[in-house]
This record gives sequence, structure tokens and C-alpha cells, in this order.
Amino acid sequence: MGIEIIGLTGIPEVQRGDDLAELIRRAAAGESRPLDRSVILVVAQKIVSKSEGAVVDLRTVEPSALAREWADQWGKDARLIEVILRESRRIVKMDRGVLIAETRHGFVMANAGVDQSNVPGEEYVTVLPDDPDASARRLQNALGCGAVIIADTFGRPWREGLVNVAVGVSGLTALEDYRGLPDRCGRPLESTVIALADELAAAAGLVMRKAAGAPVALISGLEWKPAEGSARALIRPAGQDLFR
Amino acid sequence: MGIEIIGLTGIPEVQRGDDLAELIRRAAAGESRPLDRSVILVVAQKIVSKSEGAVVDLRTVEPSALAREWADQWGKDARLIEVILRESRRIVKMDRGVLIAETRHGFVMANAGVDQSNVPGEEYVTVLPDDPDASARRLQNALGCGAVIIADTFGRPWREGLVNVAVGVSGLTALEDYRGLPDRCGRPLESTVIALADELAAAAGLVMRKAAGAPVALISGLEWKPAEGSARALIRPAGQDLFR
Repeated sequence: MGIEIIGLTGIPEVQRGDDLAELIRRAAAGESRPLDRSVILVVAQKIVSKSEGAVVDLRTVEPSALAREWADQWGKDARLIEVILRESRRIVKMDRGVLIAETRHGFVMANAGVDQSNVPGEEYVTVLPDDPDASARRLQNALGCGAVIIADTFGRPWREGLVNVAVGVSGLTALEDYRGLPDRCGRPLESTVIALADELAAAAGLVMRKAAGAPVALISGLEWKPAEGSARALIRPAGQDLFR
Repeated sequence: MGIEIIGLTGIPEVQRGDDLAELIRRAAAGESRPLDRSVILVVAQKIVSKSEGAVVDLRTVEPSALAREWADQWGKDARLIEVILRESRRIVKMDRGVLIAETRHGFVMANAGVDQSNVPGEEYVTVLPDDPDASARRLQNALGCGAVIIADTFGRPWREGLVNVAVGVSGLTALEDYRGLPDRCGRPLESTVIALADELAAAAGLVMRKAAGAPVALISGLEWKPAEGSARALIRPAGQDLFR
């Protein structure tokens, strides 16, 4: 009847080269949860990045003059700033110590997705996976579940607080288009395209953060039309973005 | 263990003056769902507005010159544009037929929350409730549940598609502050304030739209710290909004 969301604990600290699908399969089995076509998995970007080696050792980073200057001004680690600049294809905002950038994938986010939290060792940071859709697809194929979403927490204009959103999608259309379908009163819906993958990521956020040990959420009970899917559909082309 | 989300069907077309709490109680009883302190209800803004009479008969609206000009240019109903302008305290963007405005509550959204969908009769539109936090509080008090969120779908800069977000909150803190708490590696989290109410609204969106007949979602299984709560916490002060 309803939708159920379970946080999978029991995933150990993920290392470069780990078989993440196998770690997830074991954690799901530990909760007696079969991973079949009815299941959507939402996986934290952090563990995907770690398993793929999308981790940077800050000791290997030589900061540029820009990175050093900004870091000096705001009391940041210049090497961290340098990694953020390298992950960016456009700096959206650089003010009062905050760096908001468009990543090479097209996501607009704080620090271009570079993150120090939940990374062991003072000297390591994670970056976004190289191709999060492909990461999602690999996990889906290996696990045989219905869909996989790779999720990360994003800040937003106008509204406070972070929300979990999709950066990689496989197995469902990231956007559900209801345009033209009748509303309850029989009038066609005009502008109802729903960001299904982002709502799934946000829902998973409810179980993923509480225990910092639940980097995967298992969602069951949702009906959806299987599709290849891609998080690229969620990126609004700049020219059409009247919200900017 | 997990979180469960159920869409409550069986709520009839809501009319001005209807006892919305009673309609929700009956619909929950029809699903054999007790409404106790462990339950969070997410209620579509649309039915709250209807029950409170936050509905405008377009036949009573005299459009201003600005509304008429804009409507002529983009093939819109000038009376609808006039209602949007009246609901706005600031026009954020007015371009290519799209109107994004800050409502008197402080929410930045398309058409200032004015909506024609799912409203019977060609001549009626809904506007946001006058005080959505108070609406949520009244429902919570009448129903005895743990928390109530009034939700509406919003577009966003940079990302395509609408997501369900909170416009009214009672019974929980809209923002959960994890700053200073240790991550898995013992390092204090730096900027982790999560928009809990928005993630709950988005999760509810998964069951609310599929059947257009489910304007209420019932969420159980989440643990949270009871608090008075307010959706105003979700409004980012313009001066601090580096994402703009």
C-alpha cells in the first residue's frame, strides 16, 4: 500500500577498489531484504566516491595563487580550495568564504561537491564520481534492483538547510511529466513536471543521516515506469532558467 | 525499523468551511491508521486553502494596467495575473511569461503560489493560506498527531522539475542542526543543517501526486524531537543568501 524506506546500516568503511555492490548486497541480506526489481536503492555519493577512488590526498595538491589568496582571506586550507577550483567548470559565487560552483557534470553546488566529512584522515577529501549515472547503472546491474540513485546534500537559493538530491540515476526517469494529464477536475495540468529522483533522494535523506552509519536507503512500495534514466535531466539549461 | 509513507485517499472535494481535521480523521480511520504522536501528516496546501476559503473568484477581480499588459503579451488571464501581483510582496522575475515572486510570507515561488489546478470551476483559483504555520498547528491540535506539514510544489533554480516543500510546519523543527556533532570519523560536521521539513514534504510527494486523490500523506516510523516549529525557519534571509 504505502512506501517503505529503510536505512542500511552494516556497511563498513568503504575503501578504494571495494566491491560496493557486494557490500550493499550483504547489508541488505543482513536486514533480510531481497533486492529485486521492486526496490529502489539510494546510495550516498560519499561511499560511491570512496569505492571509485574519487578521493584526493591534499598532500599531493599544489595550490594556485587564486586558491592561496582566497584561503588566506577566509582561513581555509588552500589545497582544499585548489581541489574545489579543479572540480569546477564555472564559479557561480565566491563571497564571504563561500564557494558555489558548477561542476563539470553541470551541478551547481557548494564547494563543487568536494567534501571532508566522513573521510578518514585529515588529509583526504572526496570529489563527485566521474560519471554518477554510470556509477548508478553499474550498481543496478550488479544488484538486480529496480533503480539506483546516487545522492548528495545540496544547499538551495531562497531556502535554508540542505536537502538530499540525485546526482546519478539509473532505472527510472528523473523527471516525471504530468503535463496534459487531467487534474481531479478534468482540466489539463499545465506545468507539472515532478523531480521524482530528487524526491526519492530527499525521502532517503530521512534515514540516511540520523545514523551516520546508514549510507544506503532501500525504498520499496513505489510504482514507476522503468527507464534508463539520467540525473542530467535534472540540470536546468542556463538559458531556460528563469529562477536564476 | 523503517519509515512508512501512506497516501490518504478518501478525502472528498474540500469546500470552504469544511472541518478539514475531521475529513482527515475519517480518511485515516478508513485506512485503519491511528493518528497518534508518532505520526507526521503532510497536507497539500490546496485543500488547506480551500477549507479556509483562500480561494479567489476571478470574476470579482479587476486587473491593473500592469496585469493586463503582461497578460496580453503572454496570452494569460489578466485577472489571474492580478491575483498573483496581489499575493506578492516582491517580483523576483517577470520574463517570457513566467512570474516568480516572493509571497507576503517570504516564500519565493512561481505565481506567488496562486494555482488553478484541482480547483473546480473555471473561475476560481487558490492562494496560499494566510498563516500556514497556524493552519498546521490547528490541524495538529485537532488531530492529536505528532506533527503537521503543509506542503506545496516549488520549482528551483539550477534544477529541473518541481519538488514538494514545506510552507507550514507544526510539531517539529523545520531545520535540524547537526553542526558540531562528530561525523563517522570523529571530525565535527561543519555545515550540516538539514531541511527536515522539506525532506518530509518531498517524501510525501511520492504518494500525494500519483493518485491525484491523495492530498494527505501519513508518515510513521521517524524519530524526532518534538518542537513548536515553523516554516519561517526555512526562509533564507536575502542578505545571507549567497546562492542567489
